[in-house]
Amino acid sequence: MQETQVTVRFCETDALGHINNTSYFIYLEEARIKFFELLGYSMDVKDWSFILASTKCDFVSQGYFNQILSIKTYVSKIGTKSFQIEHEITCAQTGELIAKGMAVIVYFNFETQKSEVLPPLLKSALEENVSIT
Amino acid sequence: MQETQVTVRFCETDALGHINNTSYFIYLEEARIKFFELLGYSMDVKDWSFILASTKCDFVSQGYFNQILSIKTYVSKIGTKSFQIEHEITCAQTGELIAKGMAVIVYFNFETQKSEVLPPLLKSALEENVSIT
Amino acid sequence: MQETQVTVRFCETDALGHINNTSYFIYLEEARIKFFELLGYSMDVKDWSFILASTKCDFVSQGYFNQILSIKTYVSKIGTKSFQIEHEITCAQTGELIAKGMAVIVYFNFETQKSEVLPPLLKSALEENVSIT
Amino acid sequence: MQETQVTVRFCETDALGHINNTSYFIYLEEARIKFFELLGYSMDVKDWSFILASTKCDFVSQGYFNQILSIKTYVSKIGTKSFQIEHEITCAQTGELIAKGMAVIVYFNFETQKSEVLPPLLKSALEENVSIT
Repeated sequence: MQETQVTVRFCETDALGHINNTSYFIYLEEARIKFFELLGYSMDVKDWSFILASTKCDFVSQGYFNQILSIKTYVSKIGTKSFQIEHEITCAQTGELIAKGMAVIVYFNFETQKSEVLPPLLKSALEENVSIT
Repeated sequence: MQETQVTVRFCETDALGHINNTSYFIYLEEARIKFFELLGYSMDVKDWSFILASTKCDFVSQGYFNQILSIKTYVSKIGTKSFQIEHEITCAQTGELIAKGMAVIVYFNFETQKSEVLPPLLKSALEENVSIT
Repeated sequence: MQETQVTVRFCETDALGHINNTSYFIYLEEARIKFFELLGYSMDVKDWSFILASTKCDFVSQGYFNQILSIKTYVSKIGTKSFQIEHEITCAQTGELIAKGMAVIVYFNFETQKSEVLPPLLKSALEENVSIT
Repeated sequence: MQETQVTVRFCETDALGHINNTSYFIYLEEARIKFFELLGYSMDVKDWSFILASTKCDFVSQGYFNQILSIKTYVSKIGTKSFQIEHEITCAQTGELIAKGMAVIVYFNFETQKSEVLPPLLKSALEENVSIT
Protein backbone atom coordinates (compact mmCIF):
# COMPACT_ATOMS: atom_id res chain seq x y z
CA MET A 1 0.00 0.00 0.00
CA GLN A 2 1.21 3.45 -0.91
CA GLU A 3 0.03 6.67 0.69
CA THR A 4 0.52 10.16 -0.64
CA GLN A 5 -0.91 13.58 0.14
CA VAL A 6 -2.03 16.47 -2.03
CA THR A 7 -3.24 19.93 -1.04
CA VAL A 8 -6.26 21.09 -3.07
CA ARG A 9 -5.33 24.03 -5.31
CA PHE A 10 -7.63 26.96 -5.83
CA CYS A 11 -7.85 26.40 -9.59
CA GLU A 12 -8.99 22.83 -8.91
CA THR A 13 -12.31 24.05 -7.46
CA ASP A 14 -15.30 25.19 -9.52
CA ALA A 15 -18.21 27.65 -9.30
CA LEU A 16 -20.21 25.24 -7.11
CA GLY A 17 -17.60 25.94 -4.42
CA HIS A 18 -16.09 22.46 -4.23
CA ILE A 19 -13.38 20.46 -6.00
CA ASN A 20 -14.29 19.99 -9.67
CA ASN A 21 -14.75 16.35 -10.68
CA THR A 22 -11.97 16.55 -13.28
CA SER A 23 -9.45 17.52 -10.55
CA TYR A 24 -9.82 14.16 -8.81
CA PHE A 25 -8.29 12.51 -11.87
CA ILE A 26 -5.27 14.79 -11.46
CA TYR A 27 -4.88 13.46 -7.90
CA LEU A 28 -5.37 9.86 -9.06
CA GLU A 29 -2.70 10.32 -11.74
CA GLU A 30 -0.34 11.72 -9.11
CA ALA A 31 -1.00 8.73 -6.83
CA ARG A 32 -0.44 6.34 -9.77
CA ILE A 33 2.90 7.95 -10.66
CA LYS A 34 4.06 7.71 -7.04
CA PHE A 35 2.93 4.08 -7.03
CA PHE A 36 4.95 3.34 -10.21
CA GLU A 37 8.00 4.88 -8.50
CA LEU A 38 7.40 2.67 -5.46
CA LEU A 39 7.35 -0.33 -7.81
CA GLY A 40 10.80 0.74 -8.99
CA TYR A 41 9.85 2.04 -12.43
CA SER A 42 11.62 4.84 -14.23
CA MET A 43 9.68 8.06 -14.59
CA ASP A 44 11.65 8.92 -17.74
CA VAL A 45 9.11 9.55 -20.50
CA LYS A 46 11.43 7.85 -23.05
CA ASP A 47 11.36 4.70 -20.95
CA TRP A 48 7.68 4.52 -20.03
CA SER A 49 6.13 1.12 -19.32
CA PHE A 50 2.45 1.65 -18.56
CA ILE A 51 -0.68 2.73 -20.32
CA LEU A 52 -3.97 3.57 -18.66
CA ALA A 53 -6.83 1.44 -19.99
CA SER A 54 -9.59 2.71 -17.75
CA THR A 55 -10.12 4.91 -14.74
CA LYS A 56 -13.09 5.68 -12.53
CA CYS A 57 -13.90 7.86 -9.57
CA ASP A 58 -16.82 7.66 -7.13
CA PHE A 59 -17.52 10.97 -5.42
CA VAL A 60 -18.59 10.30 -1.84
CA SER A 61 -18.34 13.67 -0.09
CA GLN A 62 -17.58 17.16 -1.36
CA GLY A 63 -13.97 18.25 -1.11
CA TYR A 64 -12.81 21.85 -0.78
CA PHE A 65 -9.98 24.27 -1.49
CA ASN A 66 -6.90 23.98 0.73
CA GLN A 67 -7.93 20.61 2.17
CA ILE A 68 -5.12 18.13 2.53
CA LEU A 69 -6.18 14.90 0.86
CA SER A 70 -4.62 11.61 1.72
CA ILE A 71 -4.63 9.05 -1.12
CA LYS A 72 -4.11 5.39 -0.33
CA THR A 73 -3.30 3.19 -3.34
CA TYR A 74 -3.37 -0.59 -3.36
CA VAL A 75 -3.56 -3.41 -5.93
CA SER A 76 -6.96 -5.05 -6.37
CA LYS A 77 -6.39 -7.39 -9.31
CA ILE A 78 -3.35 -8.84 -11.10
CA GLY A 79 -3.89 -10.12 -14.64
CA THR A 80 -1.56 -11.44 -17.34
CA LYS A 81 -0.77 -8.18 -19.10
CA SER A 82 -2.54 -5.73 -16.84
CA PHE A 83 -3.42 -4.97 -13.23
CA GLN A 84 -5.97 -2.96 -11.34
CA ILE A 85 -5.36 -0.52 -8.53
CA GLU A 86 -7.79 1.20 -6.19
CA HIS A 87 -7.53 4.44 -4.30
CA GLU A 88 -9.15 5.83 -1.21
CA ILE A 89 -9.15 9.60 -0.95
CA THR A 90 -9.80 10.90 2.55
CA CYS A 91 -9.52 14.31 4.15
CA ALA A 92 -6.23 14.13 6.08
CA GLN A 93 -7.56 16.51 8.75
CA THR A 94 -10.91 14.81 9.50
CA GLY A 95 -10.47 11.31 8.10
CA GLU A 96 -13.72 11.71 6.13
CA LEU A 97 -13.91 9.61 2.94
CA ILE A 98 -14.07 12.00 -0.02
CA ALA A 99 -13.75 9.74 -3.06
CA LYS A 100 -12.79 6.28 -4.27
CA GLY A 101 -10.77 5.73 -7.40
CA MET A 102 -9.89 2.82 -9.65
CA ALA A 103 -7.49 2.33 -12.55
CA VAL A 104 -6.74 -0.51 -14.97
CA ILE A 105 -3.13 -0.33 -16.12
CA VAL A 106 -1.64 -2.25 -19.04
CA TYR A 107 2.04 -3.13 -19.21
CA PHE A 108 2.89 -1.56 -22.54
CA ASN A 109 5.85 -1.47 -24.88
CA PHE A 110 5.81 1.97 -26.53
CA GLU A 111 8.34 0.90 -29.19
CA THR A 112 6.28 -1.99 -30.52
CA GLN A 113 3.04 -0.26 -29.41
CA LYS A 114 1.89 -3.58 -27.92
CA SER A 115 0.91 -4.79 -24.48
CA GLU A 116 3.23 -7.34 -22.87
CA VAL A 117 3.06 -10.01 -20.16
CA LEU A 118 3.81 -8.57 -16.70
CA PRO A 119 7.44 -9.43 -15.86
CA PRO A 120 7.93 -11.56 -12.67
CA LEU A 121 9.58 -8.73 -10.73
CA LEU A 122 6.64 -6.43 -11.38
CA LYS A 123 4.20 -9.18 -10.48
CA SER A 124 5.82 -9.79 -7.11
CA ALA A 125 6.04 -6.07 -6.40
CA LEU A 126 2.32 -5.83 -7.15
CA GLU A 127 1.57 -8.77 -4.87
CA GLU A 128 3.26 -6.96 -2.01
CA ASN A 129 0.77 -4.12 -2.39
CA VAL A 130 -2.47 -6.07 -2.53
CA SER A 131 -3.58 -5.23 0.97
CA ILE A 132 -4.85 -1.81 1.99
CA THR A 133 -3.17 -1.99 5.41
CA MET B 1 -29.11 11.07 -28.01
CA GLN B 2 -27.00 14.20 -27.96
CA GLU B 3 -23.91 14.79 -30.06
CA THR B 4 -21.29 17.45 -29.51
CA GLN B 5 -17.80 18.11 -30.82
CA VAL B 6 -14.61 19.32 -29.18
CA THR B 7 -11.24 20.13 -30.72
CA VAL B 8 -8.30 18.82 -28.68
CA ARG B 9 -6.30 21.71 -27.18
CA PHE B 10 -2.53 21.68 -27.02
CA CYS B 11 -2.47 21.95 -23.23
CA GLU B 12 -4.70 18.84 -23.05
CA THR B 13 -1.89 16.61 -24.37
CA ASP B 14 1.04 15.30 -22.30
CA ALA B 15 4.69 14.37 -22.72
CA LEU B 16 3.76 10.95 -24.14
CA GLY B 17 2.48 12.88 -27.19
CA HIS B 18 -1.21 12.04 -26.82
CA ILE B 19 -4.24 13.40 -24.96
CA ASN B 20 -3.69 13.15 -21.20
CA ASN B 21 -6.20 10.91 -19.43
CA THR B 22 -7.44 13.76 -17.23
CA SER B 23 -8.47 15.75 -20.33
CA TYR B 24 -11.10 13.19 -21.31
CA PHE B 25 -13.00 14.08 -18.16
CA ILE B 26 -13.04 17.70 -19.32
CA TYR B 27 -14.69 16.52 -22.55
CA LEU B 28 -17.13 14.31 -20.64
CA GLU B 29 -18.11 17.24 -18.40
CA GLU B 30 -18.67 19.38 -21.49
CA ALA B 31 -20.89 16.68 -23.03
CA ARG B 32 -22.82 16.35 -19.75
CA ILE B 33 -23.44 20.10 -19.56
CA LYS B 34 -24.70 20.14 -23.16
CA PHE B 35 -26.91 17.17 -22.32
CA PHE B 36 -28.38 18.99 -19.28
CA GLU B 37 -29.15 21.94 -21.56
CA LEU B 38 -30.87 19.58 -24.02
CA LEU B 39 -33.00 18.30 -21.12
CA GLY B 40 -34.07 21.91 -20.56
CA TYR B 41 -32.13 22.58 -17.35
CA SER B 42 -30.79 25.97 -16.33
CA MET B 43 -27.05 26.35 -16.44
CA ASP B 44 -27.21 29.04 -13.75
CA VAL B 45 -24.92 27.94 -10.92
CA LYS B 46 -27.39 29.31 -8.34
CA ASP B 47 -30.06 27.03 -9.76
CA TRP B 48 -28.10 23.82 -10.23
CA SER B 49 -29.94 20.48 -10.06
CA PHE B 50 -27.38 17.73 -10.54
CA ILE B 51 -24.45 16.23 -8.72
CA LEU B 52 -21.99 13.75 -10.16
CA ALA B 53 -21.84 10.54 -8.15
CA SER B 54 -19.41 8.62 -10.31
CA THR B 55 -17.63 8.86 -13.65
CA LYS B 56 -15.48 6.48 -15.65
CA CYS B 57 -13.56 6.49 -18.89
CA ASP B 58 -12.23 3.56 -20.92
CA PHE B 59 -9.34 4.57 -23.16
CA VAL B 60 -9.61 2.61 -26.42
CA SER B 61 -7.25 4.38 -28.84
CA GLN B 62 -4.82 7.23 -28.38
CA GLY B 63 -6.15 10.68 -29.25
CA TYR B 64 -4.02 13.59 -30.39
CA PHE B 65 -3.71 17.37 -30.45
CA ASN B 66 -6.02 19.21 -32.87
CA GLN B 67 -8.21 16.16 -33.49
CA ILE B 68 -11.91 16.89 -33.64
CA LEU B 69 -13.66 14.53 -31.26
CA SER B 70 -17.31 13.72 -31.57
CA ILE B 71 -19.03 12.82 -28.30
CA LYS B 72 -22.34 10.99 -28.38
CA THR B 73 -24.27 10.96 -25.09
CA TYR B 74 -27.23 8.74 -24.28
CA VAL B 75 -29.08 7.50 -21.21
CA SER B 76 -28.30 3.95 -20.11
CA LYS B 77 -30.20 3.65 -16.83
CA ILE B 78 -33.00 5.59 -15.09
CA GLY B 79 -33.35 5.14 -11.33
CA THR B 80 -35.50 6.79 -8.67
CA LYS B 81 -33.19 9.64 -7.69
CA SER B 82 -30.42 9.19 -10.23
CA PHE B 83 -29.66 8.20 -13.79
CA GLN B 84 -26.72 6.94 -15.77
CA ILE B 85 -25.44 8.25 -19.08
CA GLU B 86 -22.86 6.82 -21.45
CA HIS B 87 -20.63 8.53 -23.96
CA GLU B 88 -18.88 7.40 -27.11
CA ILE B 89 -15.90 9.52 -28.11
CA THR B 90 -14.85 9.03 -31.72
CA CYS B 91 -12.46 10.90 -33.99
CA ALA B 92 -14.78 13.00 -36.17
CA GLN B 93 -12.38 12.78 -39.12
CA THR B 94 -11.79 8.99 -39.17
CA GLY B 95 -14.68 7.61 -37.13
CA GLU B 96 -12.22 5.67 -34.96
CA LEU B 97 -13.44 4.95 -31.42
CA ILE B 98 -11.14 6.79 -29.01
CA ALA B 99 -12.83 6.36 -25.62
CA LYS B 100 -16.02 5.39 -23.83
CA GLY B 101 -17.36 7.32 -20.89
CA MET B 102 -19.96 6.81 -18.18
CA ALA B 103 -21.49 9.01 -15.51
CA VAL B 104 -23.95 8.46 -12.66
CA ILE B 105 -25.86 11.66 -11.94
CA VAL B 106 -27.96 12.34 -8.87
CA TYR B 107 -30.89 14.79 -8.89
CA PHE B 108 -29.81 17.04 -6.07
CA ASN B 109 -31.27 19.92 -4.10
CA PHE B 110 -28.37 22.20 -3.19
CA GLU B 111 -30.47 24.12 -0.62
CA THR B 112 -31.38 21.08 1.45
CA GLN B 113 -28.16 19.29 0.37
CA LYS B 114 -30.25 16.17 -0.32
CA SER B 115 -30.98 14.01 -3.33
CA GLU B 116 -34.57 14.05 -4.62
CA VAL B 117 -36.85 11.85 -6.70
CA LEU B 118 -36.50 12.57 -10.44
CA PRO B 119 -39.46 14.79 -11.45
CA PRO B 120 -41.77 13.31 -14.16
CA LEU B 121 -40.70 15.85 -16.80
CA LEU B 122 -37.03 14.97 -16.33
CA LYS B 123 -37.86 11.26 -16.40
CA SER B 124 -39.66 11.51 -19.73
CA ALA B 125 -36.90 13.68 -21.20
CA LEU B 126 -34.39 11.01 -20.14
CA GLU B 127 -36.54 8.27 -21.69
CA GLU B 128 -36.40 10.07 -25.02
CA ASN B 129 -32.61 9.81 -24.96
CA VAL B 130 -32.18 6.15 -24.07
CA SER B 131 -31.22 5.01 -27.54
CA ILE B 132 -27.85 5.80 -29.11
CA THR B 133 -29.34 6.36 -32.58
CA MET C 1 -6.40 40.02 -37.34
CA GLN C 2 -7.75 36.67 -36.32
CA GLU C 3 -10.94 36.11 -34.34
CA THR C 4 -11.94 32.93 -32.58
CA GLN C 5 -14.57 31.99 -30.00
CA VAL C 6 -14.51 29.75 -26.95
CA THR C 7 -17.32 28.77 -24.62
CA VAL C 8 -16.31 28.82 -20.95
CA ARG C 9 -16.27 25.30 -19.50
CA PHE C 10 -17.54 24.54 -16.01
CA CYS C 11 -14.18 23.18 -14.87
CA GLU C 12 -12.57 26.47 -15.93
CA THR C 13 -14.36 28.37 -13.16
CA ASP C 14 -13.32 28.42 -9.49
CA ALA C 15 -14.87 28.70 -6.03
CA LEU C 16 -15.13 32.50 -6.33
CA GLY C 17 -17.79 31.81 -8.99
CA HIS C 18 -15.92 33.23 -11.99
CA ILE C 19 -13.37 32.02 -14.54
CA ASN C 20 -10.13 31.07 -12.80
CA ASN C 21 -7.14 33.16 -13.88
CA THR C 22 -5.26 30.09 -15.15
CA SER C 23 -8.08 29.32 -17.62
CA TYR C 24 -7.47 32.54 -19.56
CA PHE C 25 -4.07 31.17 -20.56
CA ILE C 26 -5.84 28.13 -22.01
CA TYR C 27 -7.92 30.48 -24.17
CA LEU C 28 -4.83 32.50 -25.15
CA GLU C 29 -3.03 29.30 -26.18
CA GLU C 30 -6.04 28.29 -28.27
CA ALA C 31 -6.07 31.71 -29.97
CA ARG C 32 -2.31 31.46 -30.61
CA ILE C 33 -2.64 28.02 -32.20
CA LYS C 34 -5.45 29.26 -34.48
CA PHE C 35 -3.27 32.25 -35.35
CA PHE C 36 -0.32 29.96 -36.27
CA GLU C 37 -2.69 28.01 -38.52
CA LEU C 38 -3.82 31.27 -40.16
CA LEU C 39 -0.14 32.06 -40.82
CA GLY C 40 0.07 28.74 -42.68
CA TYR C 41 2.11 26.80 -40.09
CA SER C 42 1.86 23.08 -39.54
CA MET C 43 0.27 21.98 -36.29
CA ASP C 44 2.26 18.73 -36.39
CA VAL C 45 4.17 18.48 -33.11
CA LYS C 46 7.17 16.96 -34.95
CA ASP C 47 7.34 20.02 -37.15
CA TRP C 48 6.81 22.78 -34.60
CA SER C 49 8.30 26.23 -35.24
CA PHE C 50 7.47 28.43 -32.29
CA ILE C 51 8.33 28.73 -28.65
CA LEU C 52 6.59 30.98 -26.15
CA ALA C 53 9.01 33.38 -24.44
CA SER C 54 6.51 35.32 -22.36
CA THR C 55 2.79 35.69 -21.87
CA LYS C 56 0.64 38.06 -19.85
CA CYS C 57 -3.01 38.61 -19.12
CA ASP C 58 -4.76 41.67 -17.69
CA PHE C 59 -8.08 40.80 -16.07
CA VAL C 60 -10.54 43.63 -16.74
CA SER C 61 -13.97 42.19 -15.86
CA GLN C 62 -15.02 38.91 -14.34
CA GLY C 63 -15.98 36.18 -16.80
CA TYR C 64 -18.42 33.36 -16.08
CA PHE C 65 -19.35 29.78 -16.92
CA ASN C 66 -21.04 29.22 -20.28
CA GLN C 67 -20.17 32.69 -21.59
CA ILE C 68 -19.06 32.77 -25.19
CA LEU C 69 -15.79 34.65 -25.35
CA SER C 70 -14.55 36.23 -28.53
CA ILE C 71 -10.76 36.47 -28.81
CA LYS C 72 -9.23 38.88 -31.31
CA THR C 73 -5.53 38.33 -32.02
CA TYR C 74 -3.24 40.77 -33.82
CA VAL C 75 0.48 41.41 -34.19
CA SER C 76 1.89 44.28 -32.10
CA LYS C 77 5.64 43.99 -32.73
CA ILE C 78 7.86 42.22 -35.29
CA GLY C 79 11.48 41.63 -34.30
CA THR C 80 14.39 39.77 -35.90
CA LYS C 81 13.84 36.34 -34.34
CA SER C 82 10.60 36.95 -32.48
CA PHE C 83 7.28 38.75 -32.61
CA GLN C 84 4.64 39.90 -30.19
CA ILE C 85 0.90 39.38 -30.45
CA GLU C 86 -1.93 40.88 -28.43
CA HIS C 87 -5.39 39.57 -27.67
CA GLU C 88 -8.66 41.18 -26.73
CA ILE C 89 -11.11 38.89 -24.98
CA THR C 90 -14.68 40.18 -24.99
CA CYS C 91 -17.99 38.61 -24.07
CA ALA C 92 -19.52 37.72 -27.45
CA GLN C 93 -23.04 38.30 -26.12
CA THR C 94 -22.56 41.74 -24.52
CA GLY C 95 -19.35 43.04 -26.11
CA GLU C 96 -17.93 43.74 -22.65
CA LEU C 97 -14.12 43.64 -22.44
CA ILE C 98 -13.15 40.76 -20.15
CA ALA C 99 -9.37 40.51 -20.49
CA LYS C 100 -6.36 41.53 -22.55
CA GLY C 101 -3.58 39.14 -23.41
CA MET C 102 -0.06 39.38 -24.78
CA ALA C 103 2.50 36.85 -25.98
CA VAL C 104 6.10 37.03 -27.17
CA ILE C 105 6.83 34.21 -29.58
CA VAL C 106 10.28 33.11 -30.75
CA TYR C 107 10.84 31.40 -34.10
CA PHE C 108 12.57 28.27 -32.90
CA ASN C 109 14.33 25.30 -34.46
CA PHE C 110 13.61 22.32 -32.19
CA GLU C 111 16.33 20.21 -33.86
CA THR C 112 19.16 22.62 -33.17
CA GLN C 113 17.34 23.98 -30.07
CA LYS C 114 18.13 27.50 -31.27
CA SER C 115 16.10 30.55 -32.24
CA GLU C 116 16.27 31.59 -35.91
CA VAL C 117 15.66 34.72 -37.98
CA LEU C 118 12.01 35.05 -39.03
CA PRO C 119 11.74 33.85 -42.66
CA PRO C 120 10.44 36.49 -45.15
CA LEU C 121 7.15 34.66 -45.75
CA LEU C 122 6.37 34.61 -42.03
CA LYS C 123 7.35 38.27 -41.74
CA SER C 124 4.97 39.34 -44.47
CA ALA C 125 2.18 37.17 -43.04
CA LEU C 126 2.73 38.87 -39.68
CA GLU C 127 2.68 42.32 -41.30
CA GLU C 128 -0.75 41.56 -42.72
CA ASN C 129 -2.06 41.03 -39.19
CA VAL C 130 -0.70 44.12 -37.49
CA SER C 131 -3.98 45.99 -37.37
CA ILE C 132 -6.82 45.04 -35.05
CA THR C 133 -9.51 45.84 -37.63
CA MET D 1 10.29 36.55 0.91
CA GLN D 2 8.35 33.33 0.72
CA GLU D 3 9.60 30.08 -0.77
CA THR D 4 7.51 27.10 -1.75
CA GLN D 5 8.08 23.97 -3.80
CA VAL D 6 5.96 22.09 -6.34
CA THR D 7 6.62 18.82 -8.12
CA VAL D 8 5.68 18.91 -11.81
CA ARG D 9 2.73 16.63 -12.51
CA PHE D 10 2.52 14.48 -15.61
CA CYS D 11 -0.70 16.13 -16.79
CA GLU D 12 1.05 19.51 -16.59
CA THR D 13 3.36 18.62 -19.51
CA ASP D 14 2.39 18.74 -23.19
CA ALA D 15 3.20 16.97 -26.45
CA LEU D 16 6.40 18.98 -26.90
CA GLY D 17 7.71 17.02 -23.90
CA HIS D 18 8.03 19.93 -21.46
CA ILE D 19 5.81 21.78 -18.98
CA ASN D 20 2.93 23.46 -20.81
CA ASN D 21 2.91 27.25 -20.49
CA THR D 22 -0.54 27.24 -18.84
CA SER D 23 0.80 25.06 -15.99
CA TYR D 24 3.19 27.78 -14.79
CA PHE D 25 0.17 29.90 -13.90
CA ILE D 26 -1.03 27.04 -11.69
CA TYR D 27 2.30 27.18 -9.85
CA LEU D 28 2.15 30.99 -9.62
CA GLU D 29 -1.37 30.79 -8.16
CA GLU D 30 -0.14 28.25 -5.60
CA ALA D 31 2.76 30.54 -4.63
CA ARG D 32 0.36 33.51 -4.36
CA ILE D 33 -2.00 31.59 -2.07
CA LYS D 34 0.90 30.54 0.18
CA PHE D 35 2.05 34.16 0.20
CA PHE D 36 -1.44 35.37 1.26
CA GLU D 37 -1.33 32.84 4.10
CA LEU D 38 2.09 34.14 5.13
CA LEU D 39 0.57 37.65 5.25
CA GLY D 40 -2.01 36.27 7.68
CA TYR D 41 -5.02 36.26 5.38
CA SER D 42 -7.88 33.80 5.63
CA MET D 43 -8.13 31.27 2.83
CA ASP D 44 -11.89 30.98 3.38
CA VAL D 45 -13.58 31.69 0.03
CA LYS D 46 -16.40 33.56 1.83
CA ASP D 47 -13.84 35.90 3.33
CA TRP D 48 -11.60 36.56 0.33
CA SER D 49 -9.69 39.86 0.14
CA PHE D 50 -7.74 39.85 -3.11
CA ILE D 51 -8.39 39.96 -6.81
CA LEU D 52 -5.82 39.38 -9.51
CA ALA D 53 -5.53 42.32 -11.89
CA SER D 54 -2.71 41.04 -14.06
CA THR D 55 -0.23 38.19 -14.24
CA LYS D 56 2.72 37.46 -16.47
CA CYS D 57 5.28 34.70 -16.93
CA ASP D 58 8.62 34.78 -18.76
CA PHE D 59 9.75 31.32 -19.81
CA VAL D 60 13.54 31.14 -19.47
CA SER D 61 14.38 27.41 -19.68
CA GLN D 62 12.25 24.37 -20.42
CA GLY D 63 10.89 22.56 -17.36
CA TYR D 64 10.05 18.86 -17.24
CA PHE D 65 7.86 16.23 -15.60
CA ASN D 66 8.78 15.26 -12.03
CA GLN D 67 11.14 18.20 -11.56
CA ILE D 68 10.91 19.86 -8.19
CA LEU D 69 10.45 23.56 -8.74
CA SER D 70 11.28 26.11 -6.09
CA ILE D 71 9.22 29.31 -6.26
CA LYS D 72 10.47 32.41 -4.48
CA THR D 73 7.89 35.18 -4.05
CA TYR D 74 8.63 38.76 -3.02
CA VAL D 75 6.95 42.15 -3.17
CA SER D 76 8.16 44.49 -5.92
CA LYS D 77 5.74 47.42 -5.63
CA ILE D 78 3.28 48.69 -3.02
CA GLY D 79 0.53 51.02 -4.24
CA THR D 80 -2.53 52.58 -2.58
CA LYS D 81 -5.08 49.86 -3.36
CA SER D 82 -2.85 47.26 -4.97
CA PHE D 83 0.59 45.71 -4.86
CA GLN D 84 2.85 43.76 -7.17
CA ILE D 85 4.69 40.55 -6.45
CA GLU D 86 7.38 38.76 -8.43
CA HIS D 87 8.33 35.12 -8.53
CA GLU D 88 11.48 33.25 -9.44
CA ILE D 89 10.95 29.64 -10.45
CA THR D 90 14.12 27.56 -10.32
CA CYS D 91 14.77 23.85 -10.56
CA ALA D 92 15.34 22.79 -6.93
CA GLN D 93 17.77 20.07 -8.00
CA THR D 94 20.06 22.10 -10.31
CA GLY D 95 19.30 25.70 -9.33
CA GLU D 96 18.66 26.54 -13.00
CA LEU D 97 16.28 29.47 -13.56
CA ILE D 98 13.17 28.12 -15.31
CA ALA D 99 10.75 31.04 -15.32
CA LYS D 100 9.97 34.43 -13.82
CA GLY D 101 6.48 35.44 -12.80
CA MET D 102 4.70 38.66 -11.86
CA ALA D 103 1.28 39.47 -10.45
CA VAL D 104 -0.61 42.67 -9.70
CA ILE D 105 -3.05 42.12 -6.85
CA VAL D 106 -5.88 44.46 -5.84
CA TYR D 107 -7.22 44.60 -2.29
CA PHE D 108 -10.87 43.92 -3.02
CA ASN D 109 -14.12 43.92 -1.08
CA PHE D 110 -16.27 41.17 -2.61
CA GLU D 111 -19.42 42.45 -0.84
CA THR D 112 -19.29 45.95 -2.29
CA GLN D 113 -17.42 44.66 -5.38
CA LYS D 114 -14.97 47.55 -5.01
CA SER D 115 -11.24 47.90 -4.47
CA GLU D 116 -10.15 49.37 -1.16
CA VAL D 117 -7.10 51.11 0.30
CA LEU D 118 -4.53 48.62 1.66
CA PRO D 119 -4.95 48.47 5.46
CA PRO D 120 -1.83 49.45 7.48
CA LEU D 121 -1.25 45.91 8.78
CA LEU D 122 -1.19 44.52 5.23
CA LYS D 123 1.09 47.33 4.10
CA SER D 124 3.66 46.62 6.80
CA ALA D 125 3.47 42.88 6.14
CA LEU D 126 4.15 43.61 2.46
CA GLU D 127 7.07 45.87 3.35
CA GLU D 128 8.68 43.00 5.24
CA ASN D 129 8.68 40.94 2.04
CA VAL D 130 10.14 43.46 -0.37
CA SER D 131 13.57 41.90 -0.55
CA ILE D 132 14.29 38.63 -2.33
CA THR D 133 16.77 37.51 0.33
